[in-house]
Amino acid sequence: MTVDMNALGAAAKVASRVLAQKTTDEKNALLLALADAVDAETPAILAANAADLEAARANGTSEALLDRLALSQARLAAITGDVRAVATLPDPVGEVFNEKLLPSGLKLHQLRVPLGVLGVIYEARPNVTVDIASLALKTGNAVILRGGSETLQSNIALVRAMERVLPKNAIQLIASPDRGLVSELLQLHQYVDMIIPRGGAGLHDFCRKNSTIPVIIGGIGVCHLFVDASADQEKAIPVIINAKCRRPSVCNSLDTLLVHEAIAETFLPKVKIALAERGVRFVDDEFDTEWMSLTLGIRVVKSLDEAIAHIQAHSSQHTDGILTQSDTNAARFIAEIDSAAVFVNASTGFNDGGQFGLGAEVAISTQKLHARGPMGLEALTTYKWIGTGDYLVR
Amino acid sequence: MTVDMNALGAAAKVASRVLAQKTTDEKNALLLALADAVDAETPAILAANAADLEAARANGTSEALLDRLALSQARLAAITGDVRAVATLPDPVGEVFNEKLLPSGLKLHQLRVPLGVLGVIYEARPNVTVDIASLALKTGNAVILRGGSETLQSNIALVRAMERVLPKNAIQLIASPDRGLVSELLQLHQYVDMIIPRGGAGLHDFCRKNSTIPVIIGGIGVCHLFVDASADQEKAIPVIINAKCRRPSVCNSLDTLLVHEAIAETFLPKVKIALAERGVRFVDDEFDTEWMSLTLGIRVVKSLDEAIAHIQAHSSQHTDGILTQSDTNAARFIAEIDSAAVFVNASTGFNDGGQFGLGAEVAISTQKLHARGPMGLEALTTYKWIGTGDYLVR
Repeated sequence: MTVDMNALGAAAKVASRVLAQKTTDEKNALLLALADAVDAETPAILAANAADLEAARANGTSEALLDRLALSQARLAAITGDVRAVATLPDPVGEVFNEKLLPSGLKLHQLRVPLGVLGVIYEARPNVTVDIASLALKTGNAVILRGGSETLQSNIALVRAMERVLPKNAIQLIASPDRGLVSELLQLHQYVDMIIPRGGAGLHDFCRKNSTIPVIIGGIGVCHLFVDASADQEKAIPVIINAKCRRPSVCNSLDTLLVHEAIAETFLPKVKIALAERGVRFVDDEFDTEWMSLTLGIRVVKSLDEAIAHIQAHSSQHTDGILTQSDTNAARFIAEIDSAAVFVNASTGFNDGGQFGLGAEVAISTQKLHARGPMGLEALTTYKWIGTGDYLVR
Repeated sequence: MTVDMNALGAAAKVASRVLAQKTTDEKNALLLALADAVDAETPAILAANAADLEAARANGTSEALLDRLALSQARLAAITGDVRAVATLPDPVGEVFNEKLLPSGLKLHQLRVPLGVLGVIYEARPNVTVDIASLALKTGNAVILRGGSETLQSNIALVRAMERVLPKNAIQLIASPDRGLVSELLQLHQYVDMIIPRGGAGLHDFCRKNSTIPVIIGGIGVCHLFVDASADQEKAIPVIINAKCRRPSVCNSLDTLLVHEAIAETFLPKVKIALAERGVRFVDDEFDTEWMSLTLGIRVVKSLDEAIAHIQAHSSQHTDGILTQSDTNAARFIAEIDSAAVFVNASTGFNDGGQFGLGAEVAISTQKLHARGPMGLEALTTYKWIGTGDYLVR
């Protein structure tokens, strides 16, 4: 099956102009219709998913991955419940800000508008298909989706249900497993405004190298906690357990624990026992890996300086924290650690759009332009400058 | 002469950490010292510039370009005057925003911080060397400069004067005409946070294709004014003259005039006479060129719809405007024209950082992420999320 990516991009651009003119009420009505449409197509979607799972099982896919790919009536209901929740969120589009009258007589303001066309490249889980479609729709953006080949039939069925109720080409799926199409998508800067990769480091590197469209790099967390000499040792242990063990497979989970040498002798045995009881394994010679598992790097450092230097050298600038009773040391840590989220006496697990009160999370960015850290709906918008005058000349 | 770009990038990263810790007062003192240092080195800088000019003249460079390359005592004084003005601008770094206490007990805020390291690739004019260095310094960023080969000696002399008073490697110049070094710079995503190309479309395309670092695309303006049937024709003519003739070589100057057919017969002869008196030439078959000269495309359109469709097809999304007495048509134009700046009854010439009250202008972005339109000092910053708790777990 061949896909004309240029035609797909051009169609998305046209759709984006239609979506940009929708009012908040119209977009919310479309979101509810979209949720209803997916609910109504549940049998067809589950049948397509069963076909995906059968093919994946035949390919020797692990049970853990099969579980990530699987949909069920309950999981679909949760997905469409999330869509209905997106309909209740505030719409960032249309916001007027920085209104001013300039000395020239020009009346100027900035107006928040949709980005235009989003390209989203993701792996495995089919919930992302509906999740991203709903966030794009809420913000008036058209979207081109490229899901994993393991869930191609599920994604086709989901998109078929959704597009039934949406403006033409608002959501388009690249319905082919051909990997060359990803490279083509990454070159469509004439039509596509932002690429969001959701997957591992390999996918992000591929996009960074091959895209002529701005890419949101993120989601890779080599995260640190530094236990300062002054930390309350009893209170520190539950924070470390929470950061490491809450969900070891997510990007904000702890990868490396740094402990000040002044307390290492008393504190380390206690924290290691508590972690080992929860199945954590320790390493002391590898500090550049996002473990995604119950492995934890541990290193004793001589000082706050050494802790900061270690983090500067090894962090992916996603989430890093300090446990301390010293305001001075906390202030230095905040000032010198250049990461998307910097925590004082809190678990790394808080770096999350929901926890930050954003209502929705598109991704967690570890790059510095446009959006850093958890990206909410506003990160799917831009602005234009509107200037009005009375036939004004400069 | 070989340049180790990786070492240059690593050194810039180290310098950026030093600069990020400077207070506003310290940065302003450095700016004044920088201006003084350039003033003090005026003879050496002018001698280097004379050598550049001599070589350029020997290469058959046009008088117009030679004038762009040339420095003089007065031009240098204006440049250092601008640096002292940057010292008086508000510093965006350190701003605390979106402070909130979340239901979990997490105290959260966003803190504005420098981007880190900027890579700036520019052509011809040596004033950019000092201009960008001062804006980077004001915002606590390190900068790697790559100027045009025509002004290499001038740039070396300018950077030598500036670096005398600055933290080590705060400003680094790629002091070699080797073009391969630009490609290497564009791949230093480990160290460089943003690429700002300042030059023609070819330079922007090259950066977009070859950079693994986010690039600010901008500065190319195919700009439109649409004269609606309801426009005040007498008042419209000076606006069109201003948009076209104020400075035809800049990016916000008018390239295409669209006129509603209902008024074309009466209005077009008048506006053409007025423009022709000022040396403007007209074309009616080429609408995709940024003229940078006294050439103007003119097209008669049947309706507002046709005007909007023309602009959507041909605009570089830099600056477009409508001249109209109709609030309805103005509102539709604002809603449907997706350009960085959209004007109603004002000259395109207003799309400018100074005119918009930004104090300084880094570039005019025509892409949609991070910054759109005139980029002031804030566009050279990012933020981090700071969360604090009492040994808080999720």
